[in-house]
Amino acid sequence: MDVNILLFPEFETLDVFGPIEVLGHIKEYSLHYFSLNGGIIKSRQNGLVVTEPIEKADELGIILIPGGQGTRSLINDGEFIKQLEKYAASATYCLTVCTGSALLAKTSLLNGKKATSNKKAFAWVQGINSNVKWMRKARWIKDGKYYTSSGVSAGIDMSLGFVADQFGHTMAMDIAKSIEYLWNSDKNNDPFSENGH
Amino acid sequence: MDVNILLFPEFETLDVFGPIEVLGHIKEYSLHYFSLNGGIIKSRQNGLVVTEPIEKADELGIILIPGGQGTRSLINDGEFIKQLEKYAASATYCLTVCTGSALLAKTSLLNGKKATSNKKAFAWVQGINSNVKWMRKARWIKDGKYYTSSGVSAGIDMSLGFVADQFGHTMAMDIAKSIEYLWNSDKNNDPFSENGH
Repeated sequence: MDVNILLFPEFETLDVFGPIEVLGHIKEYSLHYFSLNGGIIKSRQNGLVVTEPIEKADELGIILIPGGQGTRSLINDGEFIKQLEKYAASATYCLTVCTGSALLAKTSLLNGKKATSNKKAFAWVQGINSNVKWMRKARWIKDGKYYTSSGVSAGIDMSLGFVADQFGHTMAMDIAKSIEYLWNSDKNNDPFSENGH
Repeated sequence: MDVNILLFPEFETLDVFGPIEVLGHIKEYSLHYFSLNGGIIKSRQNGLVVTEPIEKADELGIILIPGGQGTRSLINDGEFIKQLEKYAASATYCLTVCTGSALLAKTSLLNGKKATSNKKAFAWVQGINSNVKWMRKARWIKDGKYYTSSGVSAGIDMSLGFVADQFGHTMAMDIAKSIEYLWNSDKNNDPFSENGH
């Protein structure tokens, strides 16, 4: 199955490459980097990543949406949100990290669903769509095919949780051990829920 | 000060972008991505990153050397090791993650110094240079200007430790909180030292 990473200018580096480190251990997954129109995309941390246009993505893949400073203007980019809605709706699973859930909330796809986001940006994210059941205290949340995580590093924990759901807890633990990572495997254990308060 | 990231084919994604997420929070640091000859470099996790030739790097910067599968052949690339030795010798600080310490050990720069590496690959790394004081049980090690870390995620802890040494513990804690990361701040606390045994 394809994992389709949707990048945009000023995305937050670890929002992408934490989950990718985890998902890259799954033999059944093939990793692909996209953006709205393709080309080189610059991260918040000055990295230049080569992407293909999103229209080349397998619509039935897993879509991964990072957050970052770039989301602040991107929620007003109608064409981006339209394409995101198309590919997130058709995806088998949709994973967001940090303020990536703000982008997804701007579509109607999270309406009535539980979701979380970066805790420092939580008030801003909530204001984007009040029809989402925003949960402050959660390391990550699964609601149907939608996985949303808290800020930055939480994306690693969520990705391991996603792997556990798909392939079992042992597989997730093996990956965590392989990358020498102490997995916070309890999605309700959110040490940063009071950030920004 | 410049942070010069030295990439190579099949580098491990999180070895780079974990530390970069941390160091990217320091206003005084400017992040630059290099490789031996410049151009697009493909990570182990299929990411394509644009780089400049290493000869354009500030020799007095901080150099960051990731590990990954690519190191297995790269230790036999004389031109790469020669350039690595030049820039690591002149750098103000030199940070390696995972098997990046194998590359650095292939130069003479770690001779007589304490260093660590990925625990699953530890026997291979030790075999590259027995004049290095290899320490199995360490999350990361500082010996003079050289910082070496254990596998993958340990690079995040080491980078926060480096920030603590340079700017104080509070700054490191603030960054960890900002990226919602539970920092293992004790460099002697190595939960994975028995990996590979």
